Amino acid sequence: MLQNIRVVLVNTSHPGNIGGAARAMKNMGLSRLVLVEPRLFPHHEADARASGAGDILANAQVVATLEDALVGCNLVLGTSARDRRIPWPLLDPRECGTKVVEEAAQGFEIALVFGREDSGLTNDELQRCHFHVHIPSDPEFSSLNLGAAVQVLSYEVRMAWLAAEGKPSKVEKTEVTSPRSETLATMDELERFFEHLEQTLVDIEFLDPEKPRHLMARLRRLYGRSSVSRAEMNILRGILTETQKAARGELIKRKK
Amino acid sequence: MLQNIRVVLVNTSHPGNIGGAARAMKNMGLSRLVLVEPRLFPHHEADARASGAGDILANAQVVATLEDALVGCNLVLGTSARDRRIPWPLLDPRECGTKVVEEAAQGFEIALVFGREDSGLTNDELQRCHFHVHIPSDPEFSSLNLGAAVQVLSYEVRMAWLAAEGKPSKVEKTEVTSPRSETLATMDELERFFEHLEQTLVDIEFLDPEKPRHLMARLRRLYGRSSVSRAEMNILRGILTETQKAARGELIKRKK
Repeated sequence: MLQNIRVVLVNTSHPGNIGGAARAMKNMGLSRLVLVEPRLFPHHEADARASGAGDILANAQVVATLEDALVGCNLVLGTSARDRRIPWPLLDPRECGTKVVEEAAQGFEIALVFGREDSGLTNDELQRCHFHVHIPSDPEFSSLNLGAAVQVLSYEVRMAWLAAEGKPSKVEKTEVTSPRSETLATMDELERFFEHLEQTLVDIEFLDPEKPRHLMARLRRLYGRSSVSRAEMNILRGILTETQKAARGELIKRKK
Repeated sequence: MLQNIRVVLVNTSHPGNIGGAARAMKNMGLSRLVLVEPRLFPHHEADARASGAGDILANAQVVATLEDALVGCNLVLGTSARDRRIPWPLLDPRECGTKVVEEAAQGFEIALVFGREDSGLTNDELQRCHFHVHIPSDPEFSSLNLGAAVQVLSYEVRMAWLAAEGKPSKVEKTEVTSPRSETLATMDELERFFEHLEQTLVDIEFLDPEKPRHLMARLRRLYGRSSVSRAEMNILRGILTETQKAARGELIKRKK
């Protein structure tokens, strides 16, 4: 089940932190590391700090964008140090561990996303996450080392996993008819839906690209928390396609 | 209360780990660091890894023996990676956090003791501890980085402290606009939305009233489980209104 969980590090500056993250992961039984545009990788400092976790570095996937890193994901959790203007569903590390293990047990693909050492994740990146996770640090000195942050979340995932393994009845409650038993849309499918939605809203002149306000953020939050299934996604995409035809005046022409 | 807790590092080899431990402590609100015969200290690598926690290094107490480090302590907890021949009261990190905070709240002095990078604490040192703490790592790769181990226990101390103080473990940011505390749409508003949605789908010829299939049922299930807020409902209704205008060819006319 733990193999359904990937750790995604975005634009890491210091290779030592990549090594520290790899070691923390392996200590806690996690193995899948994805690096989005690391500044220096591979690098001897990463190897040194990884200690016995060199296999995780060797198997790490290096990709160009966060979107690439999230292909196939059903649930994305992003670490957030600061308060954001747009409120978002927020978990503490313990809730994060429980959530991750519950979803992984159902076979879903999960990403834990960590931002840059100096500036974390951008607002745009945070909006691609279903949940934000905040590690409750001292407000006077709140920024954890990247490897330490990976350690805390990986530890909570392991604690939840151990608890779940001890009580298998808790994770085996997949109701046959629940929407969760349908295949969930993946992150990249969801992303294409959002792109389609945004274009359609522009087409029908509901969204002004010059003054977007927080419209897409609000819609991302709404659909992001709804665990949209692939079948539902197809319906929504179909509606958008028909709406675009309407915006082009095709329905009117057809009737003439 | 947190000032009653000291972190004791025994015979640390790598000064970078002392810096990492100091940063982890300060992130979690701990401040008292005691070093038993560190190999290299002070050291620029310790300063570098401490990042903004240089004050903890500057105030660190360097002593010659574990006994010196434990002067005045009422409760001593020692980290132990391996099973020991001598059975001993054992806590997991969460139990450790709770225990430490309970005792600190009564004014007792507490030490969290961490051993050498390669070999941990000796049996003799472990026998000076009231409790052993084991971080539940993967048995295949069980040895945590020293700074990471300090991070996990400091984190659990902070979680227990926040709970004891009645403080939230996560900052509920701007509750006024959080999705949960926003006014949810009422059942009748939701019903009017579904009517509007159905009419719009007919308008754009996505829904055939003669052959409705289960389309509306599926859409009801999707939006019904999403706890749509009133503000979100207004956005969705606005999109439907614009879509209906598009279906009537008004956008095309407007452009002419």
